[in-house]
Amino acid sequence: MAEFGAASENEPIWWYETGTDDITLGLRMRLLHRERTPYQLLEIYEHPFFGRVLVLDGNLQTTQGDEFIYHEMLTHVPLLGALPASMNDASVLIIGGGDGGTLREVLRHDWVRRVVMVEIDQVVIERCREFLGFNGNYDDPRVTLIIGDAAQYVAEEAARQQPFDAILVDSTDPVGPGEVLFTPEFIRNAWACLKPGGVFARHLCMPLFDGPIVRDGVARLRQVFPRVEVYQATIFTYVGAQMAFVACTKDGRSVREPQRLLTGRYYNPDVHRAAFALPTWWVTELIDAPAAEAGL
Amino acid sequence: MAEFGAASENEPIWWYETGTDDITLGLRMRLLHRERTPYQLLEIYEHPFFGRVLVLDGNLQTTQGDEFIYHEMLTHVPLLGALPASMNDASVLIIGGGDGGTLREVLRHDWVRRVVMVEIDQVVIERCREFLGFNGNYDDPRVTLIIGDAAQYVAEEAARQQPFDAILVDSTDPVGPGEVLFTPEFIRNAWACLKPGGVFARHLCMPLFDGPIVRDGVARLRQVFPRVEVYQATIFTYVGAQMAFVACTKDGRSVREPQRLLTGRYYNPDVHRAAFALPTWWVTELIDAPAAEAGL
Repeated sequence: MAEFGAASENEPIWWYETGTDDITLGLRMRLLHRERTPYQLLEIYEHPFFGRVLVLDGNLQTTQGDEFIYHEMLTHVPLLGALPASMNDASVLIIGGGDGGTLREVLRHDWVRRVVMVEIDQVVIERCREFLGFNGNYDDPRVTLIIGDAAQYVAEEAARQQPFDAILVDSTDPVGPGEVLFTPEFIRNAWACLKPGGVFARHLCMPLFDGPIVRDGVARLRQVFPRVEVYQATIFTYVGAQMAFVACTKDGRSVREPQRLLTGRYYNPDVHRAAFALPTWWVTELIDAPAAEAGL
Repeated sequence: MAEFGAASENEPIWWYETGTDDITLGLRMRLLHRERTPYQLLEIYEHPFFGRVLVLDGNLQTTQGDEFIYHEMLTHVPLLGALPASMNDASVLIIGGGDGGTLREVLRHDWVRRVVMVEIDQVVIERCREFLGFNGNYDDPRVTLIIGDAAQYVAEEAARQQPFDAILVDSTDPVGPGEVLFTPEFIRNAWACLKPGGVFARHLCMPLFDGPIVRDGVARLRQVFPRVEVYQATIFTYVGAQMAFVACTKDGRSVREPQRLLTGRYYNPDVHRAAFALPTWWVTELIDAPAAEAGL
């Protein structure tokens, strides 16, 4: 089954994530599992500090040790910032998220009554349950898991009755296989899948190294959503460290102020508000850079 | 003069900063200069993305590309947060800071009338002026540069008339040679060197990997200062990425609200306020951990 190679003897090896050609993050860890899924090369490693590590097509996706930062910030900022405290029947669409961490955070809210998760690669879900174990409960009666193409799902749902209060895109970077989740068509369909007060959120990579993705990403979203707010969190195992997220509302409301209180291991109401204070250069050189410079 | 070794042919080499034994940040760069000073091994490299890089005793100190983050946050949060807008004759003591970046940021404030900088290693100052070039102006008439032992200087000044409004410790980590700048004696002397409304600030390393330094550091400062506030900034080239800083006031006032407006390339008034919103685990597991766990 698995294609174990030279690293299969369970000796720790140095594994490197590349930032630019001249920058790497190195982790010495043991390969536990390697498998070519129908969509990608999946690897699970064991690291002395960060615990189990998921790598897809050679890119670090998440680690047991710090996954909480990304998953809490992707989930709670949009859900608690955009949806009113009076809401008790929210419906949430998770796109991707095969490691299950976003699902876990969404399910913490008992006022979320329906969660649809669309992940293209069933093997990711299965191996993450087996090796990482931080996933949410797929057996929760609120959850519908769809193994399929999220771009197609959103295109079909767009013709229906605006079913979701929130869409969280928990995908790989918007280059390569994840690019389909960042086309203008996908964004328009996601917009159409939201109720009038709905919110759309995703990450926008690392501004330090991925400036064009941030510039183009914000510019594309602004063509569809009346309000596009960038926020940030620091995740050491992503090369660049300070990650940009974006939350977009259909009715133009701001998500900066949490409407309900929650404390996670990284997230808390102060962190929520503070996440929108951005380094000056992000704003002047990327987010509010002239559209011509954004390549549009 | 310089001890050029195998890396002297000016070919790029992979250089690694260690987080734990199993974590490294790798930078491929050219060695420009290597010299053993009376105090440490000084190296200057050239990196394609970060520009010139200062390495002391094998530890990355600063890079041209992102030095602004550390220097702006070490300087402006305490100066603008603690000192009233009416003050027009502030005096500032910089301890260490041989690359000159902190001096540059302090001198941006025309209401700072006197700056004393005490750096033990004159060679660092000279080589940084020559190779990095982002230093403040040592010829500014407000500046007094003292080449000497800062711990001794503070001990002597402590017996005098509380001469400083702010003390900024811009040193290497508080382990090894920098440890003398973190003893209870040094902290008490620094306290004694401050005017009644004065502020003391420094960095406290990276909580992700240096938990005991944060715990012990905060606990020690709390034994002397009535108010100790931890804040953070993200600096990718420091392994761990999210750096803890600490600002302590002698009269117990908070530094969270900027008293004057300034916009840097990272720092701005929103970033100032937001810097005090800390990941939950920093507070519960380090900063407010019981003193017994802090090893005191």
